[in-house]
Amino acid sequence: MSDTPPSWADIRDAAARIAPHAFITPVMRSDTLDRLTGTHLYFKCENLQRGAAFKFRGACNAVWSLDDHVAARGVVTHSSGNHGNALALAAATRGIPAHVVVPEGAVRAKVDAITRAGAIVHRCEATQAAREAMASRVQQQTGAELVHPYADARVMAGQGTLVPELFHQAGQLDALLTPVGGGGLAAGCAIAAHGLAPGMPLFVAEPEGADDTARSLAQGARVEPFTPHTLCDGLRTLVGAPNFQVLRSHGVTAVTVSDEEAVAAMKWLWSELKLVVEISSAIVLAAVLRQPGQFVGKRIGLVLTGGNVDLEDLPWR
Amino acid sequence: MSDTPPSWADIRDAAARIAPHAFITPVMRSDTLDRLTGTHLYFKCENLQRGAAFKFRGACNAVWSLDDHVAARGVVTHSSGNHGNALALAAATRGIPAHVVVPEGAVRAKVDAITRAGAIVHRCEATQAAREAMASRVQQQTGAELVHPYADARVMAGQGTLVPELFHQAGQLDALLTPVGGGGLAAGCAIAAHGLAPGMPLFVAEPEGADDTARSLAQGARVEPFTPHTLCDGLRTLVGAPNFQVLRSHGVTAVTVSDEEAVAAMKWLWSELKLVVEISSAIVLAAVLRQPGQFVGKRIGLVLTGGNVDLEDLPWR
Repeated sequence: MSDTPPSWADIRDAAARIAPHAFITPVMRSDTLDRLTGTHLYFKCENLQRGAAFKFRGACNAVWSLDDHVAARGVVTHSSGNHGNALALAAATRGIPAHVVVPEGAVRAKVDAITRAGAIVHRCEATQAAREAMASRVQQQTGAELVHPYADARVMAGQGTLVPELFHQAGQLDALLTPVGGGGLAAGCAIAAHGLAPGMPLFVAEPEGADDTARSLAQGARVEPFTPHTLCDGLRTLVGAPNFQVLRSHGVTAVTVSDEEAVAAMKWLWSELKLVVEISSAIVLAAVLRQPGQFVGKRIGLVLTGGNVDLEDLPWR
Repeated sequence: MSDTPPSWADIRDAAARIAPHAFITPVMRSDTLDRLTGTHLYFKCENLQRGAAFKFRGACNAVWSLDDHVAARGVVTHSSGNHGNALALAAATRGIPAHVVVPEGAVRAKVDAITRAGAIVHRCEATQAAREAMASRVQQQTGAELVHPYADARVMAGQGTLVPELFHQAGQLDALLTPVGGGGLAAGCAIAAHGLAPGMPLFVAEPEGADDTARSLAQGARVEPFTPHTLCDGLRTLVGAPNFQVLRSHGVTAVTVSDEEAVAAMKWLWSELKLVVEISSAIVLAAVLRQPGQFVGKRIGLVLTGGNVDLEDLPWR
């Protein structure tokens, strides 16, 4: 709703608000991956969250924040997949309608899931402008409440709720690492992490072919929009304005990796953790491998953001 | 060691013995799979056990049951993969040598894991006779203690330790379902289940192309050995003699499924639970789908036995 980022108090409120609906996901370890990276890795398994992605947290917080008369008109969003699915599921927990604008090229498993979750799906071209235009149209036609996938403060707050869980489950951590697309997760986690552990080093992993966050942080302002090129379908979104401000003010460092590195990391995670995680999620392990000096010997919290993968179209063959 | 099956008390002892080393694995649910099957499914995730298979339990119980002077000479076994890997890992927890005889055709991921776990690997032809002969030879040469993959009472007892965990985690269950190969898991679980819940209906799932257990139970005695044909590489082993006696005396029912059904079930589990599980493990879901009338409306405990899969050789394409 508002472009003002949430506070740490908002995130604590969000945790209480979503508690009846969201799962407290497990944290997993792997001796092999610790040896491979020379670190101590704590994987927060949001692929095991409702809807198989962390985004259920933010969607749930947004849906349950609405006044009754607003909620009755439903919610609308545009999404590459996981947020749309999450919003559909969250809307269903409150029994309100959900409209989801999905761009062409979205992973089939994600589109199917959105439909199964009971949402009304609207397809559009795969550009930022087309997504926003169609969402606007639906909003005007239905009066539904727009729940932006990452710039919405309620969404950021919801995503951040995984941090207090992770810190409690993992114990002392030296750094936190998340993927970054629009920055809803990254921003929410930054606020929560520094609410609990001021000054903790924070990192975001980004594909080289969609490195707007990295370049924006380097130059101190958001770069001009461009068309991303990456297999990481969940991270093609350009970082949002309020999200970027949060990352900047919290001193977040970006690490970019190639698609090849992301694929290799994905195989490592499937092999060693026995978890189905998306390439957009595996990128966090690729980032640790890309910059060993940064992380060696440290206890790192890594968020495995989702598991919605087309099993018939795996990136390795 | 002995052909006498373990008692429920032996399984309780095993639980205490392996507790410092084995993981208490999670139990997972899936609304979609419950709807698909018309049941309430409780998946015991042994793919998340040490070594990514339940077999670590049995191997660990065997290794830690040894007197010091026996342990010092090490352990030896023959295995399609998971038991060998488990024994190597278990031996490493006690700092003793492990020799593993592995047949040709074993899944590469499993052979690699055995080597990484520090065992000495001996390859042989893919027949029961060849496996046993080479294990015997190694035993004579090294004095190592033979730890049979499934007929050993200590191994059966170790496998059965997952049942008290599952019952505690799941609450009231109406039936238990495991895959069956040699029958180490099936037998250990039968004894434990009836120790806790006498008369609980017990089921084993078996590939049609390796249906020795099903036919043996039907005729009341073990069938003649035959060469199995199935993609379920972990279930090609013929049911052991003491194992069969346990299954018979506990009134276990066998359900056979085709490889196609097992592959379909594997895809369902990867998609819905976001877990990497072997085709030999997925067979339990295939069995529920094969006999809906048997299970509809019931609360079923299913053991997901392992996750050691060759990611470059998945059975669907």
